Amino acid sequence: MYRTALDLTLDAPALTAALVDFPSVSGTEKPLADAIEEALRELPHLTVDRHGNNVVARTHLGRTERVVLAGHIDTVPIADNVPSRLDGNGILWGCGTSDMKSGVAVQLRIAATVPEPNRDLTFVFYDNEEVAAHLNGLGHVAEAHPGWLEGDFAVLLEPSDAQVEGGCQGTLRVHLRTKGERAHSARSWMGSNAIHAAGPILARLASYEPRRPVIDGLEYREGLNAVGIEGGVATNVIPDECTVVVNYRYAPDRSMAEAEAHVREVFADCGVSEIVVDDHTGGALPGLSHPAAAAFMAAVGGTAQPKFGWTDVSRFSALGVPAVNYGPGDALFAHKRDEHVAVDKITHCEERLRDWLTS
Amino acid sequence: MYRTALDLTLDAPALTAALVDFPSVSGTEKPLADAIEEALRELPHLTVDRHGNNVVARTHLGRTERVVLAGHIDTVPIADNVPSRLDGNGILWGCGTSDMKSGVAVQLRIAATVPEPNRDLTFVFYDNEEVAAHLNGLGHVAEAHPGWLEGDFAVLLEPSDAQVEGGCQGTLRVHLRTKGERAHSARSWMGSNAIHAAGPILARLASYEPRRPVIDGLEYREGLNAVGIEGGVATNVIPDECTVVVNYRYAPDRSMAEAEAHVREVFADCGVSEIVVDDHTGGALPGLSHPAAAAFMAAVGGTAQPKFGWTDVSRFSALGVPAVNYGPGDALFAHKRDEHVAVDKITHCEERLRDWLTS
Repeated sequence: MYRTALDLTLDAPALTAALVDFPSVSGTEKPLADAIEEALRELPHLTVDRHGNNVVARTHLGRTERVVLAGHIDTVPIADNVPSRLDGNGILWGCGTSDMKSGVAVQLRIAATVPEPNRDLTFVFYDNEEVAAHLNGLGHVAEAHPGWLEGDFAVLLEPSDAQVEGGCQGTLRVHLRTKGERAHSARSWMGSNAIHAAGPILARLASYEPRRPVIDGLEYREGLNAVGIEGGVATNVIPDECTVVVNYRYAPDRSMAEAEAHVREVFADCGVSEIVVDDHTGGALPGLSHPAAAAFMAAVGGTAQPKFGWTDVSRFSALGVPAVNYGPGDALFAHKRDEHVAVDKITHCEERLRDWLTS
Repeated sequence: MYRTALDLTLDAPALTAALVDFPSVSGTEKPLADAIEEALRELPHLTVDRHGNNVVARTHLGRTERVVLAGHIDTVPIADNVPSRLDGNGILWGCGTSDMKSGVAVQLRIAATVPEPNRDLTFVFYDNEEVAAHLNGLGHVAEAHPGWLEGDFAVLLEPSDAQVEGGCQGTLRVHLRTKGERAHSARSWMGSNAIHAAGPILARLASYEPRRPVIDGLEYREGLNAVGIEGGVATNVIPDECTVVVNYRYAPDRSMAEAEAHVREVFADCGVSEIVVDDHTGGALPGLSHPAAAAFMAAVGGTAQPKFGWTDVSRFSALGVPAVNYGPGDALFAHKRDEHVAVDKITHCEERLRDWLTS
């Protein structure tokens, strides 16, 4: 038996299975973080740092470029899908197979098997990605030890179906409020109906034409949608307030300030009495024109795709590190009971990254 | 001291104060029902029946007409406004002064002081009017002992500011549902937004022109209003369902079936996937053309007003008994902390009713 809890001599698919069988639902990552730290400390070419349940390992070879390979070690709650199961068609099933223990396995394999990479490497394993943003371990490391995350380029091994996904869109959530005046509904003319007043907001949303800008050759796709609506005091009262919760997903050529200004402009003449920003995280430009990114693209092949959802590449972007998503999982099956990953995708990603870092 | 808990020799304003000082919030009416029953049983010209906390007292003089005087004995919860307080301007303050212990006091005074009325009299004192309709004592009596409520005409002593209010409007509550298809809000084009789909419903409501029909000389005023709206799954999900709760208050020339058909027609082309009737109580025609009502109007004077809100006159209407509201309280101050009644209105109502029943 291997002398640490995680056996880094396993191939990447087998290591993925071992990681899935080592549960680490958000908030319970400590044992897995301990095992990862322990395994990495066995590797003489790496220095290892730890902050909470976040582990950062680095080479110090004096290369001209430094590349960050990052992944979160937590999963959503288990849904009768642990332990993992490999079927006869080369599909590995289980919680985290796709999002993103297969990516973490690839990180660990590169760490263990590429002692002299052509670029200095930083491996980041962090916790609490699947829960509220303020708990996110990558954010905590960025705040406490920004130096640990320095680099010329970052690859997040989030599920991207072994395609490069560049940048990510921003997401802004606002509350649009309309006001009215209460009255008994038997004498409705004595009041003013705030729910009726929300009609123009919904009409504007329904007719809104989202942009599809092309950035670095990638076509992004925006969206402006009501994700909630609430109004009403009692069933016999004309309501004096109604709130429409709107989510604006926007392409990374727009700054946070521009995104907010755009939303205010869209609803400028809809009778909104108040706009409150409830949540806002900016997008990240794909950064594919950076030389390190170009070399990466050439090595892994394929055509880069835009990332529509918000991901932690935005955190690297905020630190000035261009970042992409590139991992073996398939986002379509993330967070699902039937989560799975194709074993050949895991091997493919591992090989492409190794080629890039050793050629 | 008077030998029963309620002293029916007090004048109506003093009796109102005594009733206010005898709390009877909905659900706790038993002591007051006991006191009313006890006091009425002292009156030899009345027979007294009881069902739960509902008390019915009747004369049996063989008159050609029978008139029902009805009132509820419960109040909304006390709001630091008990005991009652009479100010120097002849205003009596306190919980139930307006709605409707002043009316109950007038009933009790007529019962006590008109032993030989020109019409047979039925006095109804019932519980749980201020809470859910299925608890309403008048409804319970109507179901268990419909004979107790027989009559040619009924006066409900609900607050009407000493004006006759004829009939009442119906109230229909429906849930209008729109459907969509869920998707992640970062890929909104994969779904269909049910909140956006509610836009045409709100637009229709905002542009709706309510009727103002004239019935028996009274102008009613309808209203069609959203009283609630709810939609949304999570802040990053395109919602697949939205519900608009609509309250239709309609004039009593429209039957319940006609009211439902009207609402369905109004929203016929608004993309509603489902209409569910949540609650419906019909209106009541004013019935002012009935001879007993005409005699009543002549006796009490003034001009009848339409009743916009729904009241228990509708229950009498359903039993085939034309009914009006006529009481000393002012509905505008019902259910309020500063609930009050003018003493001279109490005396006025008592005198007008006595004149009608003795002339």
